[in-house]
Amino acid sequence: MDTLPAADEALRVAMAEAAADIDLALDMLIPPSEGPEARLFDAMRYASMGGGKRLRGFLVLECARQFSVGRDTALRTAAAIEMLHAYSLVHDDLPCMDDDDLRRGKPTVHKAFDEATAVLAGDALQANAFYVLSEPDTHADPAVRIELCRNLARAAGPRGMCGGQMMDMLAEAAGGPMEEAQIGRLQMLKTGKLIEFAAEAGAILGKAPLQMRHALAAYGRDLGAAFQIADDLLDATSSPEEAGKRTGKDEAAGKATLVGLLGLPRARSQSQRLAAQAAAHLDVLGDRADLLRALAAYAIARRN
Amino acid sequence: MDTLPAADEALRVAMAEAAADIDLALDMLIPPSEGPEARLFDAMRYASMGGGKRLRGFLVLECARQFSVGRDTALRTAAAIEMLHAYSLVHDDLPCMDDDDLRRGKPTVHKAFDEATAVLAGDALQANAFYVLSEPDTHADPAVRIELCRNLARAAGPRGMCGGQMMDMLAEAAGGPMEEAQIGRLQMLKTGKLIEFAAEAGAILGKAPLQMRHALAAYGRDLGAAFQIADDLLDATSSPEEAGKRTGKDEAAGKATLVGLLGLPRARSQSQRLAAQAAAHLDVLGDRADLLRALAAYAIARRN
Repeated sequence: MDTLPAADEALRVAMAEAAADIDLALDMLIPPSEGPEARLFDAMRYASMGGGKRLRGFLVLECARQFSVGRDTALRTAAAIEMLHAYSLVHDDLPCMDDDDLRRGKPTVHKAFDEATAVLAGDALQANAFYVLSEPDTHADPAVRIELCRNLARAAGPRGMCGGQMMDMLAEAAGGPMEEAQIGRLQMLKTGKLIEFAAEAGAILGKAPLQMRHALAAYGRDLGAAFQIADDLLDATSSPEEAGKRTGKDEAAGKATLVGLLGLPRARSQSQRLAAQAAAHLDVLGDRADLLRALAAYAIARRN
Repeated sequence: MDTLPAADEALRVAMAEAAADIDLALDMLIPPSEGPEARLFDAMRYASMGGGKRLRGFLVLECARQFSVGRDTALRTAAAIEMLHAYSLVHDDLPCMDDDDLRRGKPTVHKAFDEATAVLAGDALQANAFYVLSEPDTHADPAVRIELCRNLARAAGPRGMCGGQMMDMLAEAAGGPMEEAQIGRLQMLKTGKLIEFAAEAGAILGKAPLQMRHALAAYGRDLGAAFQIADDLLDATSSPEEAGKRTGKDEAAGKATLVGLLGLPRARSQSQRLAAQAAAHLDVLGDRADLLRALAAYAIARRN
């Protein structure tokens, strides 16, 4: 984020604060444990704490702020969504899936612990995400809490993240080219649905009017798609030093991405179009949404 | 169940009806799908449909009936709990866990499909269980639905099923003897919590008075413990033909069970004590709970 223009210093600060607060929340919600389950808690903490941009958690906090939801309230939901996201990374990294040894420069969970512990830590993080959302501390109104659970379950299930990962595994096994519409659908399911929900969750917590809720969901949808193409662009064009991770992975793995299909210039213009479209959904929210606008710009400007 | 006394014909019929109804509910809740996710839905259906005693689902239905909850309503919750249970079996069977090739005489999911699909099908079944519970069709009152989600999440998480499985993996790796209290705690977490919740869920759906809810939870707790010892007794004493599955597994695996620790006679008397204790919790419910009483007797009398 060092290459962001100075005007977005406010975004940089807000994202760093959100990441720190989310880590504190996770530290409380997954406390170190004693006894024979200690290893499971250790693995859950290792998988979920101290890393990543916290894009999803930041979206929850910043969208909830539009409706004056208390930060401590929103932090529980932000942490729950980050738990869900962390679980998906742990399982995606497994030998039978993408078989990755490193994640954000650290050994993946099945490397740092073992495969059985990684499967269980992912499973337990998913359950814990729902547990956190369902507790009264998350929101006094049970109707709000159940709406959060319902939307998280949909985003995580077979018509969301799991469905997208299944498509991804099958596409890789088949090895053939994919059409643009297929790649778009795969990414919408695999990562888009959860990002969309993260933005919408702020509106749910704030009991926002449906119009606002739909606007934020649409913002999240376009933002997620822009981020995904920008990720693929980074993978195709950055050095590992710049990106902070191994690059050129997609091409080496023969992975179908929009960048591979459309070429760099068209992929770049598509990510710009999506970011502009994401920002346009925020018109109903006025100046208060400026950090969300800056986030859309950051999605395509970032170098890591 | 063929060796059950004739007096329990009513239980046999009720359990068979429940199993058939739960399969119909699962067939509707996890419909066959088209397109690239079809394989995921196929694996979820394979894992969850057409097998097992449906102990957990039957408990939901029969406990809900105590409070005149409509059967169609209770069936959604029964199916959700069976989805959660099915997911736990799929992941427990994985090569990195218990590495089982057969489950109820059929190839396990990672054998019939592949490992990645098995991990994803388990993940998606867990998400779907929460999705089903959170939908308005499950109960008109959001406070009831969130209470179901909360209790399921707790039973499934690191202080429930996942914690128990972690203890189990560690105990097997360590190979040393376990104390009675440890084995009891392991089994309470690994299988007990979900069975307890299945019984309690009926009371939650029926908005039963707290006294009744606690009585059913206690019934589920003791029943689950009795079932577990009876399972271990069957493993230790039955022929594979009688049990319908490979037996003598626990001893061969050096698995710590109460049967191994206490010996057959004491384990048998402990399962009888637990079944009687389970039945005693039903006193507050009167004659209407006779099938639940029969179930406690069946827990320790069954031959498979």
